[in-house]
Amino acid sequence: MPIERFLAHLSWMQIRDLPKDPGVVILPVGAVEQHGPHLPTLTDTLLVTQVLNHTLAHLPDEVQAWALPAVNYGKSNEHLGFPGTMSLSAATLTAVLHELAASVKQAGFRRLAFFNGHGGNVAVLDAAARDIRATLGLHTFCLHPALYCDPPFPTTPEEQRFGIHAGEIETSLVLALAPELVRMEQAVRHYPDFPSDVAPLFMFGQASAAWLTRDWSPTGVFGDATAASAEKGAALLATATAKLARLIAAISRFEVAHG
Amino acid sequence: MPIERFLAHLSWMQIRDLPKDPGVVILPVGAVEQHGPHLPTLTDTLLVTQVLNHTLAHLPDEVQAWALPAVNYGKSNEHLGFPGTMSLSAATLTAVLHELAASVKQAGFRRLAFFNGHGGNVAVLDAAARDIRATLGLHTFCLHPALYCDPPFPTTPEEQRFGIHAGEIETSLVLALAPELVRMEQAVRHYPDFPSDVAPLFMFGQASAAWLTRDWSPTGVFGDATAASAEKGAALLATATAKLARLIAAISRFEVAHG
Amino acid sequence: MPIERFLAHLSWMQIRDLPKDPGVVILPVGAVEQHGPHLPTLTDTLLVTQVLNHTLAHLPDEVQAWALPAVNYGKSNEHLGFPGTMSLSAATLTAVLHELAASVKQAGFRRLAFFNGHGGNVAVLDAAARDIRATLGLHTFCLHPALYCDPPFPTTPEEQRFGIHAGEIETSLVLALAPELVRMEQAVRHYPDFPSDVAPLFMFGQASAAWLTRDWSPTGVFGDATAASAEKGAALLATATAKLARLIAAISRFEVAHG
Amino acid sequence: MPIERFLAHLSWMQIRDLPKDPGVVILPVGAVEQHGPHLPTLTDTLLVTQVLNHTLAHLPDEVQAWALPAVNYGKSNEHLGFPGTMSLSAATLTAVLHELAASVKQAGFRRLAFFNGHGGNVAVLDAAARDIRATLGLHTFCLHPALYCDPPFPTTPEEQRFGIHAGEIETSLVLALAPELVRMEQAVRHYPDFPSDVAPLFMFGQASAAWLTRDWSPTGVFGDATAASAEKGAALLATATAKLARLIAAISRFEVAHG
Amino acid sequence: MPIERFLAHLSWMQIRDLPKDPGVVILPVGAVEQHGPHLPTLTDTLLVTQVLNHTLAHLPDEVQAWALPAVNYGKSNEHLGFPGTMSLSAATLTAVLHELAASVKQAGFRRLAFFNGHGGNVAVLDAAARDIRATLGLHTFCLHPALYCDPPFPTTPEEQRFGIHAGEIETSLVLALAPELVRMEQAVRHYPDFPSDVAPLFMFGQASAAWLTRDWSPTGVFGDATAASAEKGAALLATATAKLARLIAAISRFEVAHG
Amino acid sequence: MPIERFLAHLSWMQIRDLPKDPGVVILPVGAVEQHGPHLPTLTDTLLVTQVLNHTLAHLPDEVQAWALPAVNYGKSNEHLGFPGTMSLSAATLTAVLHELAASVKQAGFRRLAFFNGHGGNVAVLDAAARDIRATLGLHTFCLHPALYCDPPFPTTPEEQRFGIHAGEIETSLVLALAPELVRMEQAVRHYPDFPSDVAPLFMFGQASAAWLTRDWSPTGVFGDATAASAEKGAALLATATAKLARLIAAISRFEVAHG
Repeated sequence: MPIERFLAHLSWMQIRDLPKDPGVVILPVGAVEQHGPHLPTLTDTLLVTQVLNHTLAHLPDEVQAWALPAVNYGKSNEHLGFPGTMSLSAATLTAVLHELAASVKQAGFRRLAFFNGHGGNVAVLDAAARDIRATLGLHTFCLHPALYCDPPFPTTPEEQRFGIHAGEIETSLVLALAPELVRMEQAVRHYPDFPSDVAPLFMFGQASAAWLTRDWSPTGVFGDATAASAEKGAALLATATAKLARLIAAISRFEVAHG
Repeated sequence: MPIERFLAHLSWMQIRDLPKDPGVVILPVGAVEQHGPHLPTLTDTLLVTQVLNHTLAHLPDEVQAWALPAVNYGKSNEHLGFPGTMSLSAATLTAVLHELAASVKQAGFRRLAFFNGHGGNVAVLDAAARDIRATLGLHTFCLHPALYCDPPFPTTPEEQRFGIHAGEIETSLVLALAPELVRMEQAVRHYPDFPSDVAPLFMFGQASAAWLTRDWSPTGVFGDATAASAEKGAALLATATAKLARLIAAISRFEVAHG
Repeated sequence: MPIERFLAHLSWMQIRDLPKDPGVVILPVGAVEQHGPHLPTLTDTLLVTQVLNHTLAHLPDEVQAWALPAVNYGKSNEHLGFPGTMSLSAATLTAVLHELAASVKQAGFRRLAFFNGHGGNVAVLDAAARDIRATLGLHTFCLHPALYCDPPFPTTPEEQRFGIHAGEIETSLVLALAPELVRMEQAVRHYPDFPSDVAPLFMFGQASAAWLTRDWSPTGVFGDATAASAEKGAALLATATAKLARLIAAISRFEVAHG
Repeated sequence: MPIERFLAHLSWMQIRDLPKDPGVVILPVGAVEQHGPHLPTLTDTLLVTQVLNHTLAHLPDEVQAWALPAVNYGKSNEHLGFPGTMSLSAATLTAVLHELAASVKQAGFRRLAFFNGHGGNVAVLDAAARDIRATLGLHTFCLHPALYCDPPFPTTPEEQRFGIHAGEIETSLVLALAPELVRMEQAVRHYPDFPSDVAPLFMFGQASAAWLTRDWSPTGVFGDATAASAEKGAALLATATAKLARLIAAISRFEVAHG
Repeated sequence: MPIERFLAHLSWMQIRDLPKDPGVVILPVGAVEQHGPHLPTLTDTLLVTQVLNHTLAHLPDEVQAWALPAVNYGKSNEHLGFPGTMSLSAATLTAVLHELAASVKQAGFRRLAFFNGHGGNVAVLDAAARDIRATLGLHTFCLHPALYCDPPFPTTPEEQRFGIHAGEIETSLVLALAPELVRMEQAVRHYPDFPSDVAPLFMFGQASAAWLTRDWSPTGVFGDATAASAEKGAALLATATAKLARLIAAISRFEVAHG
Repeated sequence: MPIERFLAHLSWMQIRDLPKDPGVVILPVGAVEQHGPHLPTLTDTLLVTQVLNHTLAHLPDEVQAWALPAVNYGKSNEHLGFPGTMSLSAATLTAVLHELAASVKQAGFRRLAFFNGHGGNVAVLDAAARDIRATLGLHTFCLHPALYCDPPFPTTPEEQRFGIHAGEIETSLVLALAPELVRMEQAVRHYPDFPSDVAPLFMFGQASAAWLTRDWSPTGVFGDATAASAEKGAALLATATAKLARLIAAISRFEVAHG
């Protein structure tokens, strides 16, 4: 019988009796926010839970990894002003993560991985993972959405630099996983007219401008949604789930040098 | 074409264009916590989302009501000490509700209903609903799980007084909705040995003792799970969805006297 | 010599030397808020302290129970917009309760009861009592004002459903306890025109709308203040103090099954 | 008819109709904490409310000043470790003051004075008064207990420097105001053995050591309680109420230069 | 070799190996805020760090005292409305102090002194020092700017009462320590037109009005900056550093009576 | 006369009168934390302020950029357990940044750049920059220390992957800027024995383990400090200041597309 991968499908006594080391509990963290005229606001939560489900299905039975129900809402204030965007503050999302981590610790687990589906959550999750490691002693990990947005097919330089939201990659993934929720006839192509200078500022990274979507894209799209296809989505998914399965396996048995 | 009841299946432009009054947005709030040896820790979140889905399916098309993705975790500290119980603090759950309500308000909606699946959330949701009404101006409503735990069949006096968790009612509902997650061979019958006095103190209400599950039940059960059946669950569900559909319809057009 | 029922009348050495088990410390929690044109804004704090004083006077000497000075202000934001309403936030009132509970615990007591005089405090006190039980280990209890607003005389169905604030019951109690503060010539009768439907929504309980007073009552009254009398107040008081004395006695020796 | 000095004795309509400028609302802030073997833990709250009541009784009718119910608990963590000491944190007491000030502002008043009965509250009240002035625009004032602890009779140098708690002054005041709560047979004389140096550090002021009572006084007394008398208390009270009445009158018509 | 007085110039191993008792760690706390037309907004931070440096240079080698880098920003909301004023809230400054104190404690030190350069910080630092003493067990001290604003030369009664900000004293100190930052041609003389009454209210102390600078001084000056000179600054500095050196020495070996 | 680059050297009237657009205010954010046996705990604060000073000195006069005094302490809890490490929490550092940003906004500036000297601050600053952009409307920027830790000379692959703290780069910079604070005789070479797998987890980035220094390095060093030299430091500094000057110039005139 295969391992039950959904921790909350078990009773408390079954959870109590699980062998927990090696082992890792995985918390998906999504977002509900505008994704252009053609994608549902559910996109990030839908992708993170579906990619995780596909990944878990590929894990060998000997890898002990259990997924929790998702935190369906993330920090999405960069998309405020677009109806349907739902946003938690950094402080509140941080508190949610700490309190769920404390519960994971109390159950006797040693490792917790945040499986993140939204770029706007990255800073909050990175800070929380560190602080949970320091205060609770759990070994904490972050797996960010760049891991499943890395295309195994060629894309344009514009898409590589600016195709970060509701563009070719994300649209392809939703086409592969939930095509009934995509309105491709509304898909657009839009790249922000970001200052291109001798001193490049980026939207993320070591020299960055804190941006709001409405500063740069009236439709909410950054990228070329019209280039998306279900085939590209399937290719992304296959690559990502293999990579993620290896990472989860490695995390489940991760140990520090001076523990 | 029937109305799309899942708000996050829509794009931001579709949400922008929805006629919003009359209308109500519904936020399911669940919990992940011990439910005895025989039920999954997911029970409350599973029930609240499934009951809501069944209710929405029965709503007439002219009722404008849209469900948000669930807040999957609630305030469950009465069940701490049982592995698998995941609990948010009152402060954090309150913050989650306020911030999601602010997003609902920003999208242009006038009414928000909390659809609650867990007794331990009641006080937090009642306080938050009031405060959201006062600070954001949204009309806010609470629908608590007692609405779908009111059996249309006879139960014993013990079950009526003490069958509040993982007993006949909840077990029957999970048997009706997700039987593969129930381990009936582990079901037990347990009533707390609560002081019975000339001056009755209860577990809730106007004269109450703040209880922890571990104070009163080693298995985590309050009630008679062995009396549960899928048939009883189906009967509960039928009664509840009809009642809840009427309540949601009434809420969608609720107005105050001096608005 | 009778027991000194007011804990703060004792010196720290006397408090240190009290036998504390069985025993309970009682914290009155009131409110200062509009109570219609005829009652003082002090009404809730006045009633809760006076009812408690009368109750303590009826306690047998062998019951060990000590009252603390009142928390004079509660959560009254449902009455904002009416001058003289003073309101603490849920977060602040919660913090007050936790910190006073921690002081009670440090003094060596095992039981703490909140003696509440205001409906708007109920959710906050219920949540705080649970959380204090979980975090401090104190046995915590709530006694809500419904306990002394339960008339031993017949009232109309409208009064029973909607007479919740500054109506027949509260006005009668103030007439009995502080008649000099009542301006009966200003007393009015007002019931909110709450939607009455096939699916009844109430102002409290399992299906409720979060209401503000100004939504429903220009005078601030919910009920029939003109029906009040000092005789009714005296009858309410006699019934209530007997019931409350029994509850406090039971609480003072309350033990859990698996302590 | 004399002015009703207790604001909460009025109905909301009466409060709405008060002429408010000139005028000041006064919030007494007390403390419940150890006061040696001979005084009740209620001492500070008892003194601040009684001194205020006496002061109000001496105010000319043309001075518009109204007292609120007291905040009965203060910040008393310097006395922790002595049973019966009840302490709010600085953050919580600050929040209480801000929220009550916001309610005072909403009622239409322009001035708020904190009438403080406890040295441990001074820093919190000073900071809160400033911040309420800055954020709410209320004109805010502090009247600290040194105003009524300034003896009109000779005291020793030791008492002047170190008689700060439960000594000659406070004991005399309680003897004058509530003699039945004093156990003079338990009164002691104790001065802390504070380092006396070429570079004097004090317990307050520009060069100070943050002290806890238990660091310096096993009985909780700083001063000579045995030197107290009801006559001294009456003299203190007479001096203080005259001075405080003048201050409250001045505050009630205080205006800034560039308002 | 003289003792290295700047703690952060040492490596962690050197800090680990310091003999720590007797000994004190000193945290300078400044402010960046308007100081009239003639002084830099840096004034308070500049003075507190410079005065401390001069004081440390005068400490005998056997006194173990180490200075931390300054908290450059303080609570300056009394000066809001004047561009260049930077203000932390009371809550945030309090949190900074607690967290730095916790780090000092973790390093093994027993004593921490706040060396304060701004009157608006006094209440926050006094409260924090007490709370750090109570919660962390560190012996905590406050040295406030009045210690170095006490002139060894005659000043006018107006200057003594109202010369509290950017007047003769502070301007003289900056002239002595950083004359290149003073624009004496812009120096003004201004005393607030504070109500002078039979019942004097002051800007600080036992009977005070919470003031904002803009209420009383359009230039931001309280005092006579035109009376300042570098010579007066040098005299202030000489007096202050001698006094502060003695205080720091006393603090470094301070012990309580019942430790 | 060259522009005064230190904002706090100006008076409030000078700040009021500055032309502010184009223009940017720069807030250096450092850290005080262990940097191995050979570097001072001040390293990050020292570097960030010195690199900024050098950069400002290279800015053309027409670029309007002003530096604020540094936030000397950062979030350094990854180095707890090493004496001398001083750490603010994420919440407190976030609050500091928001409050200082609000002051910058009130002064009339349009752009604020965080000039960061510590890797442990990155997540907090990224989140705060976004939130300040969203709530205050300031255009907010992050410049992280990787910008000045990018060597213009060859380094080993180990140093590139793991030389992140107190290794060749940072040691070289301190040797160039404050050689008197370096104890090169204590310099060590240490690389963490991080799991090297088919599925690489890193210390930062899209798949990461939240690490504590004590998990991986008993000396606190990650990298080869013995390879450092003042010449390398000078080369790093020259490259960095040129790059940073270009970035600051670009930021000072940054505009969004749909402002």
